Amino acid sequence: MKPLQHGSVIPLYHQLMERLKASIEKGKWAPGDKILSENQLMDQFGVSRNTAKKAIEELVQEGILYRIQGKGTFVAKPKLQQSLNSFYSFSRVLKEKGLNPKDIILKIEEMKPTEMIREALQLGEEEQVIEMKRLRCANNEPYILESSFIPKHVVSDPEQLKHVGEISLYDLFSQQFNIVVSRAKEAFEPVLIRAEESELLQTEEGKPALLLERTAYDVSGMPVEFCISIVRGDRCRFYTELT
Amino acid sequence: MKPLQHGSVIPLYHQLMERLKASIEKGKWAPGDKILSENQLMDQFGVSRNTAKKAIEELVQEGILYRIQGKGTFVAKPKLQQSLNSFYSFSRVLKEKGLNPKDIILKIEEMKPTEMIREALQLGEEEQVIEMKRLRCANNEPYILESSFIPKHVVSDPEQLKHVGEISLYDLFSQQFNIVVSRAKEAFEPVLIRAEESELLQTEEGKPALLLERTAYDVSGMPVEFCISIVRGDRCRFYTELT
Repeated sequence: MKPLQHGSVIPLYHQLMERLKASIEKGKWAPGDKILSENQLMDQFGVSRNTAKKAIEELVQEGILYRIQGKGTFVAKPKLQQSLNSFYSFSRVLKEKGLNPKDIILKIEEMKPTEMIREALQLGEEEQVIEMKRLRCANNEPYILESSFIPKHVVSDPEQLKHVGEISLYDLFSQQFNIVVSRAKEAFEPVLIRAEESELLQTEEGKPALLLERTAYDVSGMPVEFCISIVRGDRCRFYTELT
Repeated sequence: MKPLQHGSVIPLYHQLMERLKASIEKGKWAPGDKILSENQLMDQFGVSRNTAKKAIEELVQEGILYRIQGKGTFVAKPKLQQSLNSFYSFSRVLKEKGLNPKDIILKIEEMKPTEMIREALQLGEEEQVIEMKRLRCANNEPYILESSFIPKHVVSDPEQLKHVGEISLYDLFSQQFNIVVSRAKEAFEPVLIRAEESELLQTEEGKPALLLERTAYDVSGMPVEFCISIVRGDRCRFYTELT
């Protein structure tokens, strides 16, 4: 193995990070594998404890490694890559990637929409919405906490929403409510995981996440869903092609 | 003004947030205006101090309000909205929105690329890159901290990069290096602002930000720039249309 370059403009911890990333990418370590301890990194790469610590810390921050108290540092699963170039369904994307999608329904409830929801769905003053709150999992691990708000007039029978565990929401829309979702607008903002979200998402408060707001439209251009998702930053990554 | 709904499923602080947001959107308060104090909110909306506090806190978190110690709480500027549906140049986007773009060049330096940069730019083992690090401002406020890595063979004269203050990097590419950037790939991840970035970006460590990685290609499909940006989450918002 080539030694790290002392005295380079690239800090040693950064060089060490790149080496560790390369080892993971090349498959030397698989997800769930324990990586070298701080002492072993110090020996093998001839770096100080601070450098080893900082490299590990940064890789934990990036979601490439994770720590278990008293057990060591392990390789995290690669992030789910989601393209923003075409309309997507989370459950379909997971299936395509060989991950087992599962939705845990936390709530299905009629409510008076907030002003933001009413505007997004272009509803009148008195119209109600159905909120469906779901924890969306891949291989039994929570990735996304999501609240869908659907105009009440769209949902002939809210009971049917319970089937989103078996088929995707948009397939349900089409099969049960005769609504074909054909396009959507999405907006992204970085946020911090909040206390109440951290428990459900099995991650820590203050960790980075994406707040994703989606408005979905049917073929006639009528908004049929407004959806707010908190997406775990250590599990998902979005990309796009710009031309 | 309609009173808040006590006993609703929507928590009072959330109703209060929506009211304050609506007042801002309707232009009752403009960016830079001081909003009502906690005491005034308690009086006007008949809520407890905790409710008023929580509503303000959440709006500060969302970047809609900001606090100045000892002075009060003020309306923040609206976020810069950036579409991901077509290729964009930050400086052009700002100009179109009537904001004055300015780049502060922090560094222009030849370096050995890290493995990630080498792969993105499809470089050989020995090829060098030019790093240009910039603080990108709008109306004199820093929005983005950005490092562009450009293959050395592309840049006939690194001195010319100093002109990115006057023209955009891609205009410079075209005028000086005869390279037309025609498409790009971008990936997004939520991250936290780090200590060293917080100073430059004039924001606090631990605040949410987007890490944006862009690879830009010329008309022949050759990668000509790899760029890593830290985008202030309280200043920018990205959106896309999915069809």
